[in-house]
Amino acid sequence: MMNLPKPLEDLIAEFMRYPGIGRKTAERYALFTVNRLEESSVRGFSEALVAAKARIVRCPVCGHLTETVPCPICADPHRDLSVLLVVESSKDVFAIEKSGTYRGLFHVLNGNLSPLNGIGPDELNLKSLWARVENETVKEIILATSATQEGEATAMYIRRVLKDVDVVVSRIAYGVPVGANLEYTDEVTLNRAIQNRREF
Amino acid sequence: MMNLPKPLEDLIAEFMRYPGIGRKTAERYALFTVNRLEESSVRGFSEALVAAKARIVRCPVCGHLTETVPCPICADPHRDLSVLLVVESSKDVFAIEKSGTYRGLFHVLNGNLSPLNGIGPDELNLKSLWARVENETVKEIILATSATQEGEATAMYIRRVLKDVDVVVSRIAYGVPVGANLEYTDEVTLNRAIQNRREF
Repeated sequence: MMNLPKPLEDLIAEFMRYPGIGRKTAERYALFTVNRLEESSVRGFSEALVAAKARIVRCPVCGHLTETVPCPICADPHRDLSVLLVVESSKDVFAIEKSGTYRGLFHVLNGNLSPLNGIGPDELNLKSLWARVENETVKEIILATSATQEGEATAMYIRRVLKDVDVVVSRIAYGVPVGANLEYTDEVTLNRAIQNRREF
Repeated sequence: MMNLPKPLEDLIAEFMRYPGIGRKTAERYALFTVNRLEESSVRGFSEALVAAKARIVRCPVCGHLTETVPCPICADPHRDLSVLLVVESSKDVFAIEKSGTYRGLFHVLNGNLSPLNGIGPDELNLKSLWARVENETVKEIILATSATQEGEATAMYIRRVLKDVDVVVSRIAYGVPVGANLEYTDEVTLNRAIQNRREF
C-alpha cells in the first residue's frame, strides 16, 4: 500500500480536527484544495485562519466573541442595561441579534455544566456573571440555555446561586415553534408546550 | 441586525468555498477555529494548506498528484509498464493502490468529458495519454472512469480515438459489489450485472 504524499496527509489530518469531518471528507477537502483552488485562494484561506484566531477575542464584560473590546453590544449606549440574556455560546448571540428584537445585554457562558466531561462552574464564564449581577444595574436575568439535560442543569444552577440576590430570574419559553404543525413536533416539545400553557 | 466580526465573516466565506459546506457548517467551523483550537493548531492548519498547495504537483507523466517528479508509481522500476489504468482523479489512484493488487501504471484524466460544463477533450489530461500509447511499451489500456453518463462518454471517446492503435482497450467490470445482497443493490447496477454476466 502506498501512502498519500506527506503534505496531503498533513492537510487531511488538519481538516480532521474539525467536528464532523471524518477521513473521507477530509481527503475530499484536501484534494479540492490542491486540485481546484488557486494558489491565491489557498493563501487567502490560510491567512483568514490566522487572522480570525489572532483578532477575535472574548469580550471581558460578557464573554461574546468580538474584534473590539468591549464588544459592540456591551459598548452600545442604546441597549437596556437592566436585562441580561444568558446563553451558551456566541452562536446564540448572533442568532438572537439577527432576529433583531432583543435590546438588552448578553452573557455568554461558553458551554454548559457537564460533570461527566469535567465541565464544572469554574470552566464556565460564571464569575463575571455574579460580578455583573452585583455591580451593574441588572434587574432581570433571562436564562436561555438549551432545553437539554445539561442546559437545564446549568439554568438551575444559576437560579440557585442567585436565589438570595434581588434580581428576577426567568427562563425563555420552550414550546411548539411558530408556524409548526403539531403532528411534526417531537414529543418532548409537545409535553413542554402543554405543561407551559398560558391562560388565553 | 448585527453582523459577525469581519475576521469571522472572512473565515466563514473561505470555508464556504469547499464542496458541500454551506453557511451554517462554515459558521460552525469558524467558531470552532476561534473557540476550541489552540493558536499553534490554527497556525499548523494555515501552514499545511499553503504547503500542500505549493508542494503537491501533477506528475508530468501520468497526471497523478505527487510531491516528487515523476510520481513514485511512475518511478517504481517494479511496475508493469505494459498496462495503463485510466482513472478520473488521483483519489481513484489512492483507492486502487490501497487495495494493493494492481501492479501496472496509471493515467489520471483529472475529470470527465462534460460538454455542458465546458469540459471537452482539451480540458482533460488526454494529450499525454496519446503520447504514452505511442511512445511507451503500453499493450493494454484499462478504462476505469465511473459508470455515470459522463464517465461512460469519456471511456467511449478514448476507445474511439484509440481504435486504430495497436493496443487492447478494456473497461473494468461493473456489477454487484462482492459481499452485497441483491435486494439492496440498485437497479442500474443489477441491470449491468445481468448484461455483463459471464459463463460459469
